[in-house]
Amino acid sequence: MNFSLDRKVLGAILIIEALLLLIPCGISFFLKEASFMPFLISSLIALVSGVVFYMPKAKYSKFSIKDGLFIVTFGWILVSLIGAVPLYLSNSVETYIDALFEIISGFTTTGSTVIPNVEGLTKGILFWRSFTHWIGGMGILIFTLALLPALGLGSFQIFRAESPGPDPGKISPKVKDTAKILYTTYFGLTFIMILFLLFGGMSLFESILYTFATVGTGGFATKNASVGAYGSVYIQMVIGIFMVLSGINFSLHFALITGRLDEIKKNTEVRLYLKIVFLATLFIALDIFFQSHYNFANALRHAFFQVSSIMTTTGFASQDFDLWPSFSKIILLLLMIIGGCAGSTAGGIKVTRLDTFFQVIKREITLTFHPNAVVPIKRDGKTIDDKAEVSVIAFLAVYTLALVLGILLISLDGVSVETAISSVFCTLGNVGPGLGGVGPTLTFLEYSPWAKLVFCVLMLLGRLEIYTVIALFAPNSLRRETNKF
Amino acid sequence: MNFSLDRKVLGAILIIEALLLLIPCGISFFLKEASFMPFLISSLIALVSGVVFYMPKAKYSKFSIKDGLFIVTFGWILVSLIGAVPLYLSNSVETYIDALFEIISGFTTTGSTVIPNVEGLTKGILFWRSFTHWIGGMGILIFTLALLPALGLGSFQIFRAESPGPDPGKISPKVKDTAKILYTTYFGLTFIMILFLLFGGMSLFESILYTFATVGTGGFATKNASVGAYGSVYIQMVIGIFMVLSGINFSLHFALITGRLDEIKKNTEVRLYLKIVFLATLFIALDIFFQSHYNFANALRHAFFQVSSIMTTTGFASQDFDLWPSFSKIILLLLMIIGGCAGSTAGGIKVTRLDTFFQVIKREITLTFHPNAVVPIKRDGKTIDDKAEVSVIAFLAVYTLALVLGILLISLDGVSVETAISSVFCTLGNVGPGLGGVGPTLTFLEYSPWAKLVFCVLMLLGRLEIYTVIALFAPNSLRRETNKF
Repeated sequence: MNFSLDRKVLGAILIIEALLLLIPCGISFFLKEASFMPFLISSLIALVSGVVFYMPKAKYSKFSIKDGLFIVTFGWILVSLIGAVPLYLSNSVETYIDALFEIISGFTTTGSTVIPNVEGLTKGILFWRSFTHWIGGMGILIFTLALLPALGLGSFQIFRAESPGPDPGKISPKVKDTAKILYTTYFGLTFIMILFLLFGGMSLFESILYTFATVGTGGFATKNASVGAYGSVYIQMVIGIFMVLSGINFSLHFALITGRLDEIKKNTEVRLYLKIVFLATLFIALDIFFQSHYNFANALRHAFFQVSSIMTTTGFASQDFDLWPSFSKIILLLLMIIGGCAGSTAGGIKVTRLDTFFQVIKREITLTFHPNAVVPIKRDGKTIDDKAEVSVIAFLAVYTLALVLGILLISLDGVSVETAISSVFCTLGNVGPGLGGVGPTLTFLEYSPWAKLVFCVLMLLGRLEIYTVIALFAPNSLRRETNKF
Repeated sequence: MNFSLDRKVLGAILIIEALLLLIPCGISFFLKEASFMPFLISSLIALVSGVVFYMPKAKYSKFSIKDGLFIVTFGWILVSLIGAVPLYLSNSVETYIDALFEIISGFTTTGSTVIPNVEGLTKGILFWRSFTHWIGGMGILIFTLALLPALGLGSFQIFRAESPGPDPGKISPKVKDTAKILYTTYFGLTFIMILFLLFGGMSLFESILYTFATVGTGGFATKNASVGAYGSVYIQMVIGIFMVLSGINFSLHFALITGRLDEIKKNTEVRLYLKIVFLATLFIALDIFFQSHYNFANALRHAFFQVSSIMTTTGFASQDFDLWPSFSKIILLLLMIIGGCAGSTAGGIKVTRLDTFFQVIKREITLTFHPNAVVPIKRDGKTIDDKAEVSVIAFLAVYTLALVLGILLISLDGVSVETAISSVFCTLGNVGPGLGGVGPTLTFLEYSPWAKLVFCVLMLLGRLEIYTVIALFAPNSLRRETNKF
């Protein structure tokens, strides 16, 4: 590893954060909000520590995979530690732990909150909360679609045609191109969605904030009743559809724009993803139609909104789904674990891993019937090798273990079993609100500081896909990791 | 397959049931209970159908693996269908579905009940309920320890020294010896436990019934408050210890008696099993000591009793553990899934599979650190092959799928999420009571007939380890199945 270079990159990231903090600072300044000073101070802290990190000379030697993982993990943590400061200094929350929880929830695009009355926040703070979703979403896209493949990790390489083989061990010159295409797509999606919301009569400020929270699949809202505060069917549908879009592998958006439809067609993940959205919507709509006396149009609308919100791990609510019948709630719990597509801003285990999981089960049952059958596990029409298959299963096992340990730790806080389970599901899955004590009308405020720290760790683990954190502590020869992501 | 021979064996099983039904019939006769006639009628039904099944000539040709699986599956179902009749005819329950639920719960050694006031039942019915546990326990032992290995299935062969290699395709002459040793051990354990309970001042009748429900790891009680109705620490400890014993592979009991201690020492499963019992007891004791104001001696006692009851999937309650803190309840939920050792009367996924699961996770993490390490997955000191490993993982995947589907189906009945989850955990795991709406002081009575049928299927699937049922529909060449059990 090259710690001096890592330090330099982290310094640069902090300097960027200092600049980004000036945006809410400016908003607060123009609106004469008390949060102006907190933002200015935070920006200075970020700037000073950034410069301190950046200034000392670095050896420009090899840049290894572990350096990449180190930067991503500690980048996320450092940016959160400083990003939490304005919330604390502006008294938006009571303790620094609360501020940290809120901003980690922001940067990891989770959207769980400890602020019961978001309508009491200043515009500057509201902007910063939602902006962290957008920044975090961008970060994870660059991480999974550009950085990992460039480092020789990750099977979700974008634009395979252009960059035939990654060059493990040093950052490929293609990263810049990839990143450029990525943020063009991300900016494009953001811009179009803002226009759609403005067209529906939403104010510019709110249009921007809901767009940040949507394309980042975060879920922070500017109203206590989340999206439910907007009665407009149009607005809810726009957000619902853009959530679904944000849960799709971003390389497919680019494929769509550039007309490479065959790439979309042969992508198995997105087909399964849309299938699940459709079926879950249908089942929940029928359930709440028959059991909760919605009329069918409303049942379908709210079911679609909630499915797209939970599956993409955004976490907006158009209704208090904690009041829905158990069948619907259990479907939502399952969607929290599944999450969106790999290479999107969504969390969870990702649809592609679920696909592999189903294929393994199917093969085992087939082999019971036809012991000598050869049943390859496929992805996008190509057979994946045994190691990749075992890696997926092992990832699911580790994820399950993280869920179980998380639930045990959180249950020590004295919440109900349902609350413990769903609060861990929705933080490790980067969803946002859960059921019971953390339902869409409630917050994580009542948890002890100790439990909030556990949630912070879970949100980070979920966002960095657990293995990244494990791999960080591994030795340099990480070739085997190629199949992990 | 040889259907005519299968039919003959099923006939013989029904004739045996007819004889067994005469025991509670006799009890009711001597006590002049109204349940006398229902038992006599049921016995006659069993006898007549048994004879009808048995009489026609059969071809004494080859007896395949599938025949074994067919007999086990349909044997369990037929015996339950007729075993339920006395409960229905004696008005112990209101509907035949209730009777079927109760008796499938009995034969599968689950112990979930639909009878809120068991103290109102006749002695004959009480005897029959508990007796079904004992018969079912015996059945599953013979199935997993004698029949499966004889059929060339199952890696849990008893007495490997004596029967070096199974002879796939036909029943080995060793089965008789194995079965004989098995029922000697089972009878021995039963006899000793009855003596222990009598010594504690329990009546002979109740001693016998609690012993049936303990060594069969069933859990039906003769009191509404289950074992909690007996204040005696002695009785609770006897039952607690015998539950732990009944959750251990029965071949180890025999190894113990015959002094082959090295066989016990090298058994990895039993060590992990006892470790889990110890740790779960400790954690729950501390939890209820600090959070539920038990004194430490009582905390330890009830924690041990409940851990041994739930982990062995017996399901007795010494306390209403649904009132315990969430941390303890979540540990109990985990134990419901884990279950006891393979080759015991306990249900669940079995400790040996959990062991493999942990080893796979550990290997994956090790490989992240040392990519070229060779980390074999072991069982009892020997490396298991890749296929056996994949089978375990696939079993866990199928088990998870069964849990999820079960929970979705049961949630349609309008119960809470916690109740839906725990009721499926405790029926598929053959445990008995669960949490919330199916807590130890409550019953499954309120569920719809449709949900009760789902539970019946879950109990049978859990008892027959799912794969048996799948394999039943597979073609004859089942050699690959060798690693499945």
